[in-house]
Amino acid sequence: MLNIRIEKTQAPKELPTKENPLKFGTIFTDHMFIMNYETGKGWHDARIVPYQPIALEPSAMVFHYGQEMFEGLKAYRADDGRTLLFRPNKNAERTNRTNRRICIPEIDENDYIDAIKALVKVDEAWVPTKPGTSLYIRPFIIATDPFLGVRPSDTYMFMIILSPVGAYYPEGLNPVKIWIEDDYVRAVKGGIGEAKTGGNYVASLKSQVKAHDAGYSQVLWLDGVHRKYIEEVGAMNIFFKINGTVVTPMLNGSILPGVTRDSVIQLCKNWGIPVEEKRISIDEIFEAYQNGTLEEVFGTGTAAVISPVGELRWEDHIMPVKTGEIGELSQKLYDTITGIQLGKLEDNNKWTVEVK
Amino acid sequence: MLNIRIEKTQAPKELPTKENPLKFGTIFTDHMFIMNYETGKGWHDARIVPYQPIALEPSAMVFHYGQEMFEGLKAYRADDGRTLLFRPNKNAERTNRTNRRICIPEIDENDYIDAIKALVKVDEAWVPTKPGTSLYIRPFIIATDPFLGVRPSDTYMFMIILSPVGAYYPEGLNPVKIWIEDDYVRAVKGGIGEAKTGGNYVASLKSQVKAHDAGYSQVLWLDGVHRKYIEEVGAMNIFFKINGTVVTPMLNGSILPGVTRDSVIQLCKNWGIPVEEKRISIDEIFEAYQNGTLEEVFGTGTAAVISPVGELRWEDHIMPVKTGEIGELSQKLYDTITGIQLGKLEDNNKWTVEVK
Repeated sequence: MLNIRIEKTQAPKELPTKENPLKFGTIFTDHMFIMNYETGKGWHDARIVPYQPIALEPSAMVFHYGQEMFEGLKAYRADDGRTLLFRPNKNAERTNRTNRRICIPEIDENDYIDAIKALVKVDEAWVPTKPGTSLYIRPFIIATDPFLGVRPSDTYMFMIILSPVGAYYPEGLNPVKIWIEDDYVRAVKGGIGEAKTGGNYVASLKSQVKAHDAGYSQVLWLDGVHRKYIEEVGAMNIFFKINGTVVTPMLNGSILPGVTRDSVIQLCKNWGIPVEEKRISIDEIFEAYQNGTLEEVFGTGTAAVISPVGELRWEDHIMPVKTGEIGELSQKLYDTITGIQLGKLEDNNKWTVEVK
Repeated sequence: MLNIRIEKTQAPKELPTKENPLKFGTIFTDHMFIMNYETGKGWHDARIVPYQPIALEPSAMVFHYGQEMFEGLKAYRADDGRTLLFRPNKNAERTNRTNRRICIPEIDENDYIDAIKALVKVDEAWVPTKPGTSLYIRPFIIATDPFLGVRPSDTYMFMIILSPVGAYYPEGLNPVKIWIEDDYVRAVKGGIGEAKTGGNYVASLKSQVKAHDAGYSQVLWLDGVHRKYIEEVGAMNIFFKINGTVVTPMLNGSILPGVTRDSVIQLCKNWGIPVEEKRISIDEIFEAYQNGTLEEVFGTGTAAVISPVGELRWEDHIMPVKTGEIGELSQKLYDTITGIQLGKLEDNNKWTVEVK
């Protein structure tokens, strides 16, 4: 059990009960978790303190060489009042996977989950109760050595902050329009694409701006070598239902192994729906669109859970999916996963973890 | 002329006269430059203040999405007492090239150079005088919006910090051993490889650790698509002298356009030495090594200026270059560029800029 020192705030903020819908990622709770690392000493000094700015040397490595990682998960308020986390062990595992790739020391996965639970417990009053709302949990690690040479840092801060967030789709599941990028590249085999680190996100900004300007809400990336195989959406993994079979790009080193992605694959298997993780070219998708077998397209991610795609644009080809309606499977997956997250449906896979 | 408010320190540090050699990037001067950006307001509030930690919200975008960039250049103390910068306009240009790629607002290039000059002037006593020493200048920009959504930030801090540094080779030019990486990839066409941003450096750490463990000081990257064309060393560009001709990889979008690289190309042209920027495969280098025409290999960068390479390792092939001696051209380039930087040689290209 991680030993955590707790220093409660003397000036609690007002709960954002009046703000509705809550805007994603702008409001933060009263407390935050911090733990430090130092070579030779390991991870130490776990503490929960009032939410406040952090002071770093201008030479801190995180500002220069991008040695940073983050995770995202949510706490949900069940109807019976319990606070539930959804598969936090997957975030702990993925943190260490990222850490190994970018030379950040690993964290004991039980300590990691203990830290999340302890912080959510302290700020449990901030877990919102309205349908579709949740408490977004953002663990992250930054390199803090005050040193301008390029090498892995000897010191780090692991922090967790919390943000109450509104329903991603306050008016129900709305299909999004996706721009298939064939100019810029997010990540490549041998690179850092499967790590949840800032470098992958900064690489996506320019394309995202281009897509927004053209009226598309997100970008679908193609692989960096052949520029034809489907990768991911940056904030989401992507699924296609083609002629009754659900397909999604296989994890190849440049795709983020999403927790919702994994949950969708497991649910499809449980339900007896054929599901394949494989290499998928954009030509295959275009062909399926043309011959009418492209039945559903949806993204999966922590923020939206299931995000139905209503239109794909690839070069000059505009591919409406099901004339913009929500697919039956997309809806069923959304209802099932959110039902489990909120403790309304039976949790056969033991995905939820109660914060006690 | 940029209007800069100056607040001098009340507690100046002791100059590091006794520390010799000065370790790179560990000691910082008394002051730093800061300028803020806000959408709608532009870059504003340019100021020089005492060197001190900076306080940021834990949700500041730089900690999560890697929207950050940096530059590096040096101020030299000439024998006649003048303080000289080397081609600072190239760093200003490259800053804006990076900024365009990663959606950071551009900075007026004259303001940029004014800021550097003003800060170096305030801390001019910190420019060291021993042969080979200099004042390393680190401009950098970080995204500061306290927001967890992925998009370009609306607020930024542009900062400059200064660090007196010792001779890179206190005992003269020492050839380095280079590991040619064929497993990990630094950057790919369409990505952020030509931008000076943290994401490229974090991607290099794991390979760097592997190379160090094997006794190699730096990593030479191959391209991410074919995995056979030479790119760069991460902290340096790379040059080969093969059968009398100097060759270096052409700028292709995934290579950093180095200032020293550009200076070397110009000097070779001035001297009538054949120099080519082109696509170079590792097989060509290996062939040149085998048939005895690989005459010199050297890296170019701000830190070391010219870094002769004494050995290349590619898979199981170990290629000693000139039995570890320093090539004639490497030495001549080093002497010429450092001679110009220190005001000892005539500056026909008008590369140096005096800090007045």
